[in-house]
Parts: sequence; structure tokens; C-alpha cells
Amino acid sequence: MVSSEDIIYLDHAAATPIADFVFDEMRPFMTEKFFNPSSPYAPAISVRREYEAAKADLARVLGAKSDEIIMTAGATESINLMIHNVTGHIVTSAIEHAAVLEAVKTHEHTLVVPRPDGTIIPESIRAAIRPDTELVTIAYANNEIGTIQLLSDIAAVVKDERNRRSEAGETQPIYFHSDASQGAGVLDLHVSRLGLDALTLNAGKVYGPKQVGLLWASSNVKLHAYVVGGGQERGLRSGTENIAGTVGFAKALQVAQDHRGAEASRLRKLRDILQTRLIESFPDAVISGSRKKQLPGFLHISFPGLDAERLLMMCESRGVLVATGSACAANKGTRSHVLTAIGLAPEVADGSLRITLGKLSNEDTIARAGDIIIDVVSTERARLAR
Amino acid sequence: MVSSEDIIYLDHAAATPIADFVFDEMRPFMTEKFFNPSSPYAPAISVRREYEAAKADLARVLGAKSDEIIMTAGATESINLMIHNVTGHIVTSAIEHAAVLEAVKTHEHTLVVPRPDGTIIPESIRAAIRPDTELVTIAYANNEIGTIQLLSDIAAVVKDERNRRSEAGETQPIYFHSDASQGAGVLDLHVSRLGLDALTLNAGKVYGPKQVGLLWASSNVKLHAYVVGGGQERGLRSGTENIAGTVGFAKALQVAQDHRGAEASRLRKLRDILQTRLIESFPDAVISGSRKKQLPGFLHISFPGLDAERLLMMCESRGVLVATGSACAANKGTRSHVLTAIGLAPEVADGSLRITLGKLSNEDTIARAGDIIIDVVSTERARLAR
Repeated sequence: MVSSEDIIYLDHAAATPIADFVFDEMRPFMTEKFFNPSSPYAPAISVRREYEAAKADLARVLGAKSDEIIMTAGATESINLMIHNVTGHIVTSAIEHAAVLEAVKTHEHTLVVPRPDGTIIPESIRAAIRPDTELVTIAYANNEIGTIQLLSDIAAVVKDERNRRSEAGETQPIYFHSDASQGAGVLDLHVSRLGLDALTLNAGKVYGPKQVGLLWASSNVKLHAYVVGGGQERGLRSGTENIAGTVGFAKALQVAQDHRGAEASRLRKLRDILQTRLIESFPDAVISGSRKKQLPGFLHISFPGLDAERLLMMCESRGVLVATGSACAANKGTRSHVLTAIGLAPEVADGSLRITLGKLSNEDTIARAGDIIIDVVSTERARLAR
Repeated sequence: MVSSEDIIYLDHAAATPIADFVFDEMRPFMTEKFFNPSSPYAPAISVRREYEAAKADLARVLGAKSDEIIMTAGATESINLMIHNVTGHIVTSAIEHAAVLEAVKTHEHTLVVPRPDGTIIPESIRAAIRPDTELVTIAYANNEIGTIQLLSDIAAVVKDERNRRSEAGETQPIYFHSDASQGAGVLDLHVSRLGLDALTLNAGKVYGPKQVGLLWASSNVKLHAYVVGGGQERGLRSGTENIAGTVGFAKALQVAQDHRGAEASRLRKLRDILQTRLIESFPDAVISGSRKKQLPGFLHISFPGLDAERLLMMCESRGVLVATGSACAANKGTRSHVLTAIGLAPEVADGSLRITLGKLSNEDTIARAGDIIIDVVSTERARLAR
């Protein structure tokens, strides 16, 4: 058994530890500042103010207004809330997170197929938009292979359609939503630069707490409530507020965004070192994702003919934690819908590891992880060659 | 300004502080045990086991099966999930929490009127049930006046109707749900003794974390998902699990239930001391709620002709924190629907304080609070008499 100090964690896309400075921000709201923010006395009003300040901090990162933000219990709820508000046709992609793919099932929808590198081509979106399309929803970065989408180019397509409808006197609105959970720590989140009408974020991917997320929706998006009751979050999402979670999320996102340039460079350098070593050792390994628009900490690598689950277990026995696909899909024993959609052959897909770097990664751990992965893959190849 | 050490908190029905032993249970899952419980490697599997163990602990308190429990972001979401699953007519009461009253608005429903002491008479439920009634939902204890309902008597009425339908060959199911959030720390929660088909609980009312709750539903209740995605909680409520929150909730509820008898006696004694003093000082004050079936820490008292908001502010300036109504309703400036439903005259209702005792209450603080409330009410009466 590998002790926890010896673990090399390379699954930052599945979960991130809460940063110490985030935990320190949350702690008072789990202890002495426990008041219900709807209560009318001063200590509760003070808690409400700190909650509103945290939402304002989140809004500032997005370049948005604080009252356009609805706090939720995570990205999945945010996505459900957004899609629940849509009655018309939806355009999305075949490589979206399960939350999107499940939620759109109750709507007429079109799944756009990406290029083999995971890129969603704006013209594919244009071709899929119908006169009754109400929502286009495309994740900012894919959670399995790490491809970053050119949201502003897709936004331009949505805007073209909006203008066409306006000139034609059609009243059907069309909105552009993106789940930016994956990569929120390293990407620009300014919603007007991205051209978004709505955006989903998750605290648990940026060294904040789990079960905390938000939906930002521009004031031109008409929302109605999904969870009703006491009227919190402007009546759009009732329930006593998660002050600790929101304050922690705001701190986590702010710090991540303040350092995102440097962290992206650091992770890219480490990822490239690891990728180069693995490809040099195994020239037939297949790297998925985009060469140019790729999350800096993401390395999706396939070893044709090998069994990813065996590789994962062998890596684990040596202290290296990686994923075979996204964590949600991983424990279902089915082949990744993302790898199928990008056209990866089954014998390649089945030998895929998702290696995701983050705050717990450094030159030393990446060098050691490289040694171990190379050794594991070599061992497994030798076994099969016998 | 009163320093935080001098605050006498008498609003335990609005929010409770996280107990130290609960925080200690939660902490590791916010720091080193951060893994995604859907990940396949040992440290994540260990986290999943601890999560499942916490759910089993929660189930044990209810005398239920662990796989009948769905973790949610609080009582409001649990209630919405339950009601969302109903298509038929709903019977509920006029004194339910806003989450119930708002959620039933999208359904055909009947609001049963309670007796003046807040008791829902089982025969009123019987009279309201129609052949197409699918759900009866009545809170275990009222969150404003503290009246405890005789759930098992209401369950018998529901069972009668179920038997009638069975004998008549009718296939329409009928379920009995109760929101037991208020009073979960002092009441019996054994679902079969209570005769329930579904139950809602909230961690934030029993010295656990906010935004954590559960819906228990017997396996005979057919549920479909409200929030879809990765398939967590048997597909009924997707989203990466709140391990820290669930573990904390389980610990909080277990400890509360282990000591509920002693704590109920202690709170009842303290409440009675305070109630007796206030009534001796102000014989015309009106106590609401039930004499026999009342939450032990609840004292709802009205001072006819006085303004509760002024009383609250004057109490606060002396360090005593009380509520004027439920926290959700309090900041909306409208008269409590509960007090209206029990027939309290407006001039009485408008002078109502909800005083709720809990872990932060003891003989000393209750004696001091009594002095201060008596002084405040006397001062206010004198001012109005001038």
C-alpha cells in the first residue's frame, strides 16, 4: 500500500483539494457566523452582506452583474436549471458532459459532431440551428480530452441568427450557454468577451468546495424557478444559502483567475515534459485533443491494444492516480461517448488514460510519474507480447 | 454594540451552529480526502465507502434502507423533488413551509386548515382526500409556532384510503410525505412507526451544515429524476456528492437522536421557565402552539398591540436574538401565513415573537433573556401608554 504522502495525484479534472486559503475563508461561516442570512438582526445581516460580497466577487471575475448570478449546488444543477428554462430546440455537441446530454433528452435537440481533435466548428453550429432553436450550449473545454472551444466564434454564429430573426420579425429568442467548469482556473471567463448569455461554473474544479456552483444568466435571459420555496436567489433557487460554500468559491475563483496566466504556463510546461517523454518511449501512442487549443494541464493518451483499467490499477499500485475517462463515466464500464464521437477506434479508446495536472503537480512528481507510467506500459506490453 | 460573547441566541429554528464534533468529522473531506467518489482508485473508493457509511447511518436513524435515501442540497430541494414526482391531486395544510406551498401551486391541491393550536386534524385530511389524490404532505412540526403533528394518525387515514382504493380496484397510488426538518433533533424519526412513505430532513437545523438535506422515499414510491447528469444517487439526483456535508449530517443527526430525550427535557424545562416568567409579567400575552404536542424549545408569544419588529430590535440592542416569524418570511414584510391560518387576530399576530431554544441555551442565558424581554416589553408598553 502506498502511503498518502507518496501519492502522485494526476486526476485534477475529477476533483481538486480545497486550498488552505479557501478553507480558512469558509471556516468562520461553519462555526461562529452560522446565522440564517434571512434573519433580521445585525449578526445575520452581516452574514448576508458577506454573502452578497462573495457573489459580487464572483460577478467581477465574469465581468457581470452580481444580481445575474444564481448560486446552486454545482454545475450539474446549474445546467439543469438553464435547460429547464428552455422550451424550444437545443443545439449542443456529442461530447458534452452527461448533465447536458441527459437534460436535453426532454427537448428537441441536435448533437453537433466535433472534429477528431474535439473542436466544435462554428459552421456546424450554424448548420444545426433551426428557426425554433432557443439554446446553443457548448462546454468551454472538454472534460475528457481537454479541447478548448472558440466560444466567441460560436457566439458570432448565434448573434448572426439573432440578427436574422430580428430582421425577419421573428420573436423566438436564442441564447448561448457554456459550462465553463473544466478549465475555469486557467481560462478567461469574461462573459462579454466570450459572447455568452449564460455560463455555468463549479467550485469543486478550482480548489473550492464540492456541491457549490453558479449559473450566470444575462438579464435578457428570462428564467423561472426550478426549486421553489423561501424565495432566495431572487426567487429562482430557494433554500437557505450556502454562505461558507459561496465565500469559499469566490476566494478560490478569484485567486485562480489572478494567477491563471502563470499557472497555465507552469502546467503546460509540465504537461509537455510528460507528453514528450511518453511519446518518445511509445511512438505509437495516440494523443487526443487539440494541439493549439488544449487545456494546459490535460494529457489524454491512448496505448493501442492495452487495457486502460489494467494500466490504471498498475499505476495506482505504484502511487500514481490517473483516470481512464471522466470520473462520472468511469464507474459505469461503458466506453466514453467523447472518444466515440471524435472517432477514436475502440482498440485505441480502450487503452486511454486521462492525465490531468494541477496544483499538486511539480517537476519532481511529473518526473516520477513519467518513470512509473513508462514502466507500467512497458511491463504490460511485454506481458502481452509473450 | 453587543459583543458576540454577550449574544443570547434564541433563534435556533432559523439556523443552528455546526457542532464542533460535526465540524471535526467534515474537515478531512474538505482537506486530504478530496477525491471524487466516482473515481476508480483506492483513495476514492475509500471516500465512497465513507459516504455510503454516512448514508447508512442516516438510514439507521430512520429505520430505513440506505438505498432509499437521496442526498440533496437541503429540505427545500427535497420537498421540490418529492412534489415534482407527483402528477395527481395533493393534500397539504395552510401552515406548511413556503417550499411546500410554492411547489404545490403547479398541482391541483387542497389546503387543510389547522385548529387554532396548529394541530392538523386527521379527519380534515380524510375530508380533503379525493379519488385522484396522490400525495398528502404535512410537516412533522410547524416551523413558526412549534406544533407537533400526530403523523401516525394521519398515516392511518392515508392507509384507509389506500385500502379503499385497493378494494375498489382503483390503481391511483397515494403517498404520505412529511418534512421533518423542524424538530428532527428532538422527535422520533422512525419512518415505519410514523407511517410515512417519504420524509425530508435538513442538516442545518440539527447542528449540521447548511445546504445539506435528504429525501427518504420508501421503495414503493416511484421517483424519477429532477436534476439529471452523471447518475449519482441512483440516477435520481446527479452531481458530485457532498461527502463532507453528508458525513457531517450523519454525525449531527445521530448524536442529536442519541440524546433527544434528555435534550427535549432540558429544553422543555428552560422554555417553561421563560414562558412562566413572561406570562406572569404579562398575563394578556398570547401563547400559540399546542399545550400537549409542542416542540420543547419553541415559545411563540404575542404581545397584543405591540410591534414585533420594534421588540426584536430592542431585544437585539440588549443582545437577545429572537425572530418575529420564520426567517424565510421575516424579511418580506408580510404577515405570517401561519398566524393567519390559525386565526390569530392581526393586532395579536403583529406583536409576536418566536423564541426558539437550543444547544446555546442554558439556565443562565434564559434567565438573562427573560429579564431583558420583560424590560423591553414593559418599556414599549409604557411608551405607548404615554
